[in-house]
Amino acid sequence: MVLYVVGLGLGNEKDITVRGLEIVKSCDHIFLEAYTSILGGVPKERLEEFYGKPVTIADRGMCENDADDLIIEPAKDKNVSFLVVGDPVCATTHTDLILRAREVGVKVEVVHNASIMGAAGSCGLQLYNFGQTVSIPFFRENWRPTSFYPKIKYNRLGGMHTLCLLDIKVKEPDFDAMMKGKTKFLPPRFMSVSTAAEQLIEAEETTEEEAYNVESTLCIGLARMGQETQKMVAGTLKELSQVDMGEPLHSLIICGELHDLEFEVVKEFLIEGSSFSMEKQES
Amino acid sequence: MVLYVVGLGLGNEKDITVRGLEIVKSCDHIFLEAYTSILGGVPKERLEEFYGKPVTIADRGMCENDADDLIIEPAKDKNVSFLVVGDPVCATTHTDLILRAREVGVKVEVVHNASIMGAAGSCGLQLYNFGQTVSIPFFRENWRPTSFYPKIKYNRLGGMHTLCLLDIKVKEPDFDAMMKGKTKFLPPRFMSVSTAAEQLIEAEETTEEEAYNVESTLCIGLARMGQETQKMVAGTLKELSQVDMGEPLHSLIICGELHDLEFEVVKEFLIEGSSFSMEKQES
Repeated sequence: MVLYVVGLGLGNEKDITVRGLEIVKSCDHIFLEAYTSILGGVPKERLEEFYGKPVTIADRGMCENDADDLIIEPAKDKNVSFLVVGDPVCATTHTDLILRAREVGVKVEVVHNASIMGAAGSCGLQLYNFGQTVSIPFFRENWRPTSFYPKIKYNRLGGMHTLCLLDIKVKEPDFDAMMKGKTKFLPPRFMSVSTAAEQLIEAEETTEEEAYNVESTLCIGLARMGQETQKMVAGTLKELSQVDMGEPLHSLIICGELHDLEFEVVKEFLIEGSSFSMEKQES
Repeated sequence: MVLYVVGLGLGNEKDITVRGLEIVKSCDHIFLEAYTSILGGVPKERLEEFYGKPVTIADRGMCENDADDLIIEPAKDKNVSFLVVGDPVCATTHTDLILRAREVGVKVEVVHNASIMGAAGSCGLQLYNFGQTVSIPFFRENWRPTSFYPKIKYNRLGGMHTLCLLDIKVKEPDFDAMMKGKTKFLPPRFMSVSTAAEQLIEAEETTEEEAYNVESTLCIGLARMGQETQKMVAGTLKELSQVDMGEPLHSLIICGELHDLEFEVVKEFLIEGSSFSMEKQES
């Protein structure tokens, strides 16, 4: 039979494709990957009602340790759906699952959908002009990695925009409780645009290579893209560090060279009185 | 009322999202943009049957000259759908339509979907590692532009992959017939992977800046991505220039630095006896 890896898109249960829905409804087992993204506040129960089938949450532990037994093995004689928010091949997170399934002779079929990498085009920036995508991890007291910094710098030197994907911490072990012998998890955390902006400011201040200017480079905060409450705000990093974009998920774009047609759209949601100026744009 | 700009995805009529289908069915006018892409051989009639509504083909002339009257004006008091293969904001082609509609007070809503820029991840390459996207135009006798070349070079120097979108010529005027006073159009042309590879070889031979090596840099030919007959072939440009990938649409990827997990997938469709070698990969 087939292991279907089905993209759910970004907004709610109705963002699945017609073909995807037909497939999911025909499956014997349905798993929902729930540690790299979230489907705009839609609970598992609403999905189950929409599909008319039970849905099993697949967290990181299950995907990394038990996927062979729980997901791939059943796909040998039954149809199994593995649901992923966005597009399933947008990140290589699930490449391993697909490869392992094929290795044991299970047919795998991917159903594509919209991803944040495509929806980012909503802000008016030309997707063709984006360079490599970076991830911004939550800084910790003694761990403040800036591996994203040289990538942003390289993109900007080439005039390209950079999409920054912001950290998500779901089902992180609570080490304090664990030391007391209890298995406990911390509440989920989603990095906000303002936190990302603060970290990017710190990265520029400690690195001092002028990959971007925290007071004049245009950046765009994105929140809940593809959902009804989608929000976009453009401004400098200093400005965005003061903005509350509301509920997760958030992402952030650091602009490269901005074209007039791009700015035509962006200016609609530029912070009033922003210190960014299209005229003085660094080339 | 609302102008809905709805992505159709890549494969066939069932790749529209559930929400997208509900919207299209509720609209009074439905236009299908038909000059930047094609929906895998699905004729307009099949869409009309699926939607239960008539669909009007919008060619380039209509979009550029008559969109105000034919598309935007009706959206002032009726719901109008403008259908786009892939994702509507993947290219800025339709930004102008969206801006013009908003200018006259028409509400615009975008329904996202999968695009070639996301589906390219199917070949196993990490989408995060793609740099700017380039377009390869059909070379003509006296017009052989290589503006894509420095972009590919910059991407590769930074270790990034490059997605090359290949030219499409739909409803091109037949100047010979026109000189005889007849309005006639040439049959549609879609650039194949082999033609793109030939042009990229020529660009390297005339420019000689070693942006890529035509006999050792790994490239991936993509055909009909997201469709049932989807096909991927990996090899050098010299090798891909000899490969027939079948029906359109085609795209081509020029790899940057290849990671082991990426190659795990790519090697499944590497041309037998290819002169590419993972061991000798230029870093």
